[in-house]
Amino acid sequence: MSRVDQAYARLVEALRAQTDLADALHLLEWDQETVLPAGAAERRARQIGTLAAALHERRTDPAFLTLVDELAAISAELDPSQAVDVRETKWHVDRARCLDPELVRERSTLHAQARGIWVTARRDNDFAALAPWLGRVIDTERRVATAIDQRRPAYDVLLEEFEPGMSAASLDALFQELRTGLQPLVDRIQRKANRRHRGAEALCGAFPVNAQRRFNKLVADRLGFDFNKGRLDEAAHPFTTTVGDDVRITTRYDRRDLRYGLYATIHETGHALYEQGLDPGAWGTPRGSACSFGIHESQSRLWENQVGRSEAFWTHLLPAARKAFPALAGRSLGDVLLAVNDAGPSLIRTEADEITYNLHIILRFDIERSLIDGSLEVAALPQVWREKMRHYLGVEPETDRDGVLQDVHWPGGSIGYFPSYALGNVYAAQLFKAAEAEIGPLDAALAAGEFTVLLGWLRQRIHRFGQTYRPVELITLATGETPTARPLLDHLERRIAFLEST
Amino acid sequence: MSRVDQAYARLVEALRAQTDLADALHLLEWDQETVLPAGAAERRARQIGTLAAALHERRTDPAFLTLVDELAAISAELDPSQAVDVRETKWHVDRARCLDPELVRERSTLHAQARGIWVTARRDNDFAALAPWLGRVIDTERRVATAIDQRRPAYDVLLEEFEPGMSAASLDALFQELRTGLQPLVDRIQRKANRRHRGAEALCGAFPVNAQRRFNKLVADRLGFDFNKGRLDEAAHPFTTTVGDDVRITTRYDRRDLRYGLYATIHETGHALYEQGLDPGAWGTPRGSACSFGIHESQSRLWENQVGRSEAFWTHLLPAARKAFPALAGRSLGDVLLAVNDAGPSLIRTEADEITYNLHIILRFDIERSLIDGSLEVAALPQVWREKMRHYLGVEPETDRDGVLQDVHWPGGSIGYFPSYALGNVYAAQLFKAAEAEIGPLDAALAAGEFTVLLGWLRQRIHRFGQTYRPVELITLATGETPTARPLLDHLERRIAFLEST
Repeated sequence: MSRVDQAYARLVEALRAQTDLADALHLLEWDQETVLPAGAAERRARQIGTLAAALHERRTDPAFLTLVDELAAISAELDPSQAVDVRETKWHVDRARCLDPELVRERSTLHAQARGIWVTARRDNDFAALAPWLGRVIDTERRVATAIDQRRPAYDVLLEEFEPGMSAASLDALFQELRTGLQPLVDRIQRKANRRHRGAEALCGAFPVNAQRRFNKLVADRLGFDFNKGRLDEAAHPFTTTVGDDVRITTRYDRRDLRYGLYATIHETGHALYEQGLDPGAWGTPRGSACSFGIHESQSRLWENQVGRSEAFWTHLLPAARKAFPALAGRSLGDVLLAVNDAGPSLIRTEADEITYNLHIILRFDIERSLIDGSLEVAALPQVWREKMRHYLGVEPETDRDGVLQDVHWPGGSIGYFPSYALGNVYAAQLFKAAEAEIGPLDAALAAGEFTVLLGWLRQRIHRFGQTYRPVELITLATGETPTARPLLDHLERRIAFLEST
Repeated sequence: MSRVDQAYARLVEALRAQTDLADALHLLEWDQETVLPAGAAERRARQIGTLAAALHERRTDPAFLTLVDELAAISAELDPSQAVDVRETKWHVDRARCLDPELVRERSTLHAQARGIWVTARRDNDFAALAPWLGRVIDTERRVATAIDQRRPAYDVLLEEFEPGMSAASLDALFQELRTGLQPLVDRIQRKANRRHRGAEALCGAFPVNAQRRFNKLVADRLGFDFNKGRLDEAAHPFTTTVGDDVRITTRYDRRDLRYGLYATIHETGHALYEQGLDPGAWGTPRGSACSFGIHESQSRLWENQVGRSEAFWTHLLPAARKAFPALAGRSLGDVLLAVNDAGPSLIRTEADEITYNLHIILRFDIERSLIDGSLEVAALPQVWREKMRHYLGVEPETDRDGVLQDVHWPGGSIGYFPSYALGNVYAAQLFKAAEAEIGPLDAALAAGEFTVLLGWLRQRIHRFGQTYRPVELITLATGETPTARPLLDHLERRIAFLEST
């Protein structure tokens, strides 16, 4: 082996040892959310803290940093795939080394504390209790951004943690296009608001949890989820995590509404299919890791929305659903499609429909950017939230609990995270359109339960690349266009036309 | 805080950080045995290896070793409980530092390989395939013993890993007493061998697994297991593990034999009650950790045998069992007692009854001691095994699979482990006798389902001390006698008298 190859092999081995520790951390967290006995929560938090610190130590170990720098200095001698791993590792390492260990510790303690405060503040509808903590979080994130790169806008630096290479300016342009296109659609939804819940009851009724467990497994399996290297369990807040090559999805069931668990399962299956589609030969390296939060979300949204709410999908699924649930006797395909495409302005992001969801995100993007650049004070948040909700969605929360206090992201220190959700929607529509442009209309395949055609295309165009390309480049390569809201708007327009036609 | 207290506080914090990592390791292992998808096994093994190496690094970190040495040097200034923690930590640290890291790595690789070879050798009944590996294991364990203390017999040094302070000579004396007392009991069992299975069918029939799950939970709960800080799950080979303050037991079910799962559950509950009874204020330190393998086994055996096979216990449990399982209709208390006390010479240790079990262990002790001191060659093992089985139990395996190949312990490198099982039986009988001597006969309480009297006594006399005392001292303090086989022999004599009377 050449000297360069040897150094690269050492990098891979170091990254894989870090990944092993990260995987142990993921398992501690998965276990905490699924099966941990209540009395063991406190010690679990400590175990997670200790392991996270051990991992951080490895990631900032001087010998490791030197190895990365040495490889970066000779990047011209690396082959292209080695160069990707060195480039991305160096990027992460350079961000991490800018942060004083004291700031890292202070920041993670602050986030843990503020999350705790948020739980009670939301319960008590007490924004004033959270406000000083939010102020501290904003201030700390500004310090973090400055430490990493003081020449660029702080928000851009934070955003890149979730969407590398994306700037607030380009996001602004994209969201402008999205917002402009969405407004007339929202107006149309509002006009038919009185008819909103007409179809909603088609998937409501008696859905025993054990039958749902079997049915949701069947759905994940049919979509292509590999249960030989994965599990489906239950958690209060559904999530997907990867423990090595073992991808675990979680969902939760409502015994009176099939949609509640099913769409969580499909969404998480989308995340899982991405993880299971990464290059196993590149595990532990950037090439074997997901590209960005936005790209990850595009995979969950594509299966949830483009596929899971389509007539073709339900043409395939309804017979199996009828067999699993006597409550569905007499429900027509049309009834079910109304139930899963029901739309209308609402207060809570996580309960929003496919159309209005994006406005919930744009609102948060506007606000968090202003908080970081200092043009908005924390104290003004509840008022601004209400005004923007009225402006974008025509509804206004009566309480902060249903307003600015609804999400954990800001108290948890995730500033720059929210845009990923809308980016995921934008990318998903763009990818689905590109897939159909390349392989032809997918309706017949989806209606026949042949999901591998679409999955194969995603594996080929997205999954196998890992972090070989940054998100914008990846989307451009896969779809022939830079990120654009047009396909999403077209998709939503068709949804509304369907609702209006019923 | 004084300088001494500060140093001690640093020790505790270091031990607790090590415990956090060990707990993460326990969770990786628990998950592997209970819920891990098949395809993820290889990566899981790697994760465990990486975390074990990280833990070993902490435990042999020069700064940590120096701290331990410094505290040991000023042990006269420590308060008694601090002195216990320093004494025991120093003992473990001194053993660990004697071992060259190369030897540690070589040893653990060898054990992993030999375990793999053993699986196929047992399946194929091919002792010759395992023999060279066993030779290497024996040789390596001798080197380990010599590195730790070359002045003492190698077997003594190995034994102490499992039973600190115990020597082969004192074990020999104890096992001599046990063997002499057991021989006439085994003869009596053999004489009634033709009647052996008379009662065995009382707990055989249709026992649906879901009903067993509920019933086994109920049993663990009644015995005092705290489900707020613990779980009961299923694994092919039942075990108990502790993840922080979260104690997890596992069992496995046979849908045609209630005993199979139930006695595994009671046994593991015994281990778990010990773990849950350790001093929570001393967690992570020797004072908050189990005393030895033998003491641990005494807790599982006491609940399994002294309690779980008694008339009093079944007087309490039978109504609940009848309610849970229609198959028990018409089964009398006497039938059930015959079924759970069924005895007779057999080939497989893990399936042996309460009486003959101890001879299986004494046989293994004889052999492993001779292997280590060089008086027995690996090649002679199958022959020696058969001779000893005939001599002790009057039965002889037709295959090595049912003979010397049946246990994983030796290929897995656990030499000196087997005696813990018989020590557990000896200690259990001694403790139960002492408990009755102190609080009076327990039959009425057990028959009424009041297990807290006995559990309270064990907590007071055994659990709360952790490693404050070495095993022999702990047993002597709790029972007023040094370890003796007499109470176990008396207990088994009563069992046989019961069997003979039916």
